[in-house]
Amino acid sequence: MSGPGDWRDLFVATDERGLRTLSEAAAKAVDSLDHASSGPRSSDTPSQLRERVRALEVCPVEGVALDRVLDEFGRVLWAHAVRPSHVASVAHLHPPSVVPAVVTELAISASNQSMDSWDQSPAATEMELHLMDFLARRLGLAEVASGVMTSGGTASNVLGLTLSRSWAAAKLGVDVLKAGLPPEARRWRLVTSDQAHFSVQRAAAQLGLGRDAVVNVATDRTGAMDVDALDATLSQLDEAGLVPIAISATAGTTDLGAIDPLAQIAERARRRGAWFHVDAAVAGAFVMSEALRPRLAGIEAADSVTIDFHKLWWQPFNASALVVRDVERFDLLRVRSDYLDRGDELDGMVNLVGRSLDTSRRFDAAKVVAALRTIGTSTFAEMIESLVELTVYAARRIEASEVLALVAPVSAVSVVFDAPGHDADELRRVQQGLLARGEMILGRTVIKGRAALKFTFMNPLATRADVDELIAVVTRGFVPG
Amino acid sequence: MSGPGDWRDLFVATDERGLRTLSEAAAKAVDSLDHASSGPRSSDTPSQLRERVRALEVCPVEGVALDRVLDEFGRVLWAHAVRPSHVASVAHLHPPSVVPAVVTELAISASNQSMDSWDQSPAATEMELHLMDFLARRLGLAEVASGVMTSGGTASNVLGLTLSRSWAAAKLGVDVLKAGLPPEARRWRLVTSDQAHFSVQRAAAQLGLGRDAVVNVATDRTGAMDVDALDATLSQLDEAGLVPIAISATAGTTDLGAIDPLAQIAERARRRGAWFHVDAAVAGAFVMSEALRPRLAGIEAADSVTIDFHKLWWQPFNASALVVRDVERFDLLRVRSDYLDRGDELDGMVNLVGRSLDTSRRFDAAKVVAALRTIGTSTFAEMIESLVELTVYAARRIEASEVLALVAPVSAVSVVFDAPGHDADELRRVQQGLLARGEMILGRTVIKGRAALKFTFMNPLATRADVDELIAVVTRGFVPG
Repeated sequence: MSGPGDWRDLFVATDERGLRTLSEAAAKAVDSLDHASSGPRSSDTPSQLRERVRALEVCPVEGVALDRVLDEFGRVLWAHAVRPSHVASVAHLHPPSVVPAVVTELAISASNQSMDSWDQSPAATEMELHLMDFLARRLGLAEVASGVMTSGGTASNVLGLTLSRSWAAAKLGVDVLKAGLPPEARRWRLVTSDQAHFSVQRAAAQLGLGRDAVVNVATDRTGAMDVDALDATLSQLDEAGLVPIAISATAGTTDLGAIDPLAQIAERARRRGAWFHVDAAVAGAFVMSEALRPRLAGIEAADSVTIDFHKLWWQPFNASALVVRDVERFDLLRVRSDYLDRGDELDGMVNLVGRSLDTSRRFDAAKVVAALRTIGTSTFAEMIESLVELTVYAARRIEASEVLALVAPVSAVSVVFDAPGHDADELRRVQQGLLARGEMILGRTVIKGRAALKFTFMNPLATRADVDELIAVVTRGFVPG
Repeated sequence: MSGPGDWRDLFVATDERGLRTLSEAAAKAVDSLDHASSGPRSSDTPSQLRERVRALEVCPVEGVALDRVLDEFGRVLWAHAVRPSHVASVAHLHPPSVVPAVVTELAISASNQSMDSWDQSPAATEMELHLMDFLARRLGLAEVASGVMTSGGTASNVLGLTLSRSWAAAKLGVDVLKAGLPPEARRWRLVTSDQAHFSVQRAAAQLGLGRDAVVNVATDRTGAMDVDALDATLSQLDEAGLVPIAISATAGTTDLGAIDPLAQIAERARRRGAWFHVDAAVAGAFVMSEALRPRLAGIEAADSVTIDFHKLWWQPFNASALVVRDVERFDLLRVRSDYLDRGDELDGMVNLVGRSLDTSRRFDAAKVVAALRTIGTSTFAEMIESLVELTVYAARRIEASEVLALVAPVSAVSVVFDAPGHDADELRRVQQGLLARGEMILGRTVIKGRAALKFTFMNPLATRADVDELIAVVTRGFVPG
């Protein structure tokens, strides 16, 4: 049997030897990325990839040298990854990541702070709070606003809507987290648009209300919530004796990038005492640009806002946040425990577990701050504006195309289109063919029953020439030669 | 206005220039860790830390050079972090992280795969499935078992209990995710021990059942569920017309490390058709040791199991998993969407969003495999066994102490003790003093109404001499000089 001395180099240490070990291994991990294919992904099939991956035993009896493992990962995982930094990776809200964030990930995981309690993350807790304050100010919320980092937009939406459920129950004098859903909950409804992300439905399902409790308001041709339709929906709910406990607006829908009329929706939510949640996972980064910020007018009236740093803020996964208009709203969530967050600590110690649906939690705020501080608002605004401009350019080119046609006007960084005369099966064939051959990761979706293809522009390094080439490649899929 | 050319070095690229940029920045990020204090943390107060952190503007108009930002982070964040690798970090299940995992984090975030759909993570999807299969086999589950990575033990427990709720509803012919909780749900109960993690209560709260739906079964003096008490509880539920939809056993309680009698509980769950969930966040790593594996006998009968790789598998946060006995159980969760997981893809493409409560999700499986493959089962078993032995040693030393006394027998890697003649306020004073001075991150909790202190041993590099020193330091807190 071996002992502590033999395991020393396995664990992170911050003495000279430890840092040298870590530095050398990090350099090798970077080298392993060199195996990437030239396209957005390799052309391996699922079964070929399965075979490559399964050739690596997860945990052999005797360990394999780290250098070799990193090299294997290079050949098996990174060479057959999707490259979100490739200009032909345009299917999803899947960003290329920025260097300051990526290298900070190394420090985050080496230091391994846990955000649930102050005594596992003292300076880190303060930094997360600092970032949340920054974000709240950018959103135009008051001093009392704050937030918490979550693992993703879905988690942020679920957290916001969890708070809305507690809020509604509290008005009835019910602690829903303790007592469960009251009988009145059968009449509760979550109102959102028919273009909202499916995580609103998922939240309703998770919270015991069920997806049937989600009422979908019609959208206009851009994909934004139609306020007249909202008014009609609210009247119908009144007539049916149903209670809209929350209205969830979307700032940047998943497919069309549409931004709901936030100020008008806010006014209706306020009038009825409904919680006003804004899912700004997609377009939240517009708060960083003076030119784009006005499109989010009304967001400052939100009770809660979802921001995904791992979308148009170019952070590696995971990095999302939920901001609330008053930090005391988190009291709606709080569960005390005897081993964390007892409430009898020294002055000023904040245990973030009280704000979160998670317990142990990574210090993802560090990478976001490293990136923002390195980039600066001026460059950040230019990058986000250039993507919006590139999207407008792509839409114009598709409008001018004889083969492709826009399905809806563009609002943010995605362009949804189809190929008139070609049915859903043909769209599928083209998209799956490009994916299978590793030529393009193209989006495919359905807008109001109509099958469509989608470009999502996440990479500020992409140029108009790249867009022309993407359109040419897709066009050849329908009109060969 | 600048343009794409100016932003090139900001984004990860895998050409020669890009890899050099990344490698140099990574080396600097490692160097920034050199500022760590010599104790388990610095002695800065919350307000001092707040001031240091707030001196860094999150996003100035013009960006700050990355080298400088990394250096600032070294001085402000990492120098004032808790060091989980320090032998006096013994409060929580907060592990020192291993080098293979930490450097793989760099590749994970550089490649930025997203685990929700195959076309964002082709090889990565296969690797996560491979790891889940490995884990399921280690747990003794059948070939049809599989799992999914989650952000933490709480998320894994919530996912397991979400499945149990759907399972119970399905027996009534109800799709609870669609229709919401049926009236019968008022009678549903989640049965667990009074030492279970608070995430079981949190799951009940989240699911709309409420914390009141959690029935706590008494535990024996080790903290393990008392099977006679379980039988009595189940009889009482029967008499009251209440339905135990799930029994959640714990393999390694948070404070005492106790392992419930899994086989006996499994038998009772099966007899009643209740879902059998095992929260093995703490002791799940025992499956890696032939000597310790028998303590988990019965885990192979679970419907779902929570495993936290970011505990006794020494992974940086986040890395958790939920394993289910039959992959088809995930159908209880599935929400189709038009832009992901349409079900019409090429042969063999798996979209993991169908198994998860998250959408975008990080490729955390890579770091786990990198670490396990490097360590090997033989060394892994030695490390976990050495921690268990060290804990037994610490318990003996406390038994022999004239100042400290064991509160309960030890079961895994934690020792809970108090100081007879000293009340809760004095325990608090000692623990908070050690924390404030940066001398020790000591645990403090309450066991069955009795205030207590806690050592949690997560670091295989700790020695018996370190344990002697920890005990001496705590003793001096009560009996100075």
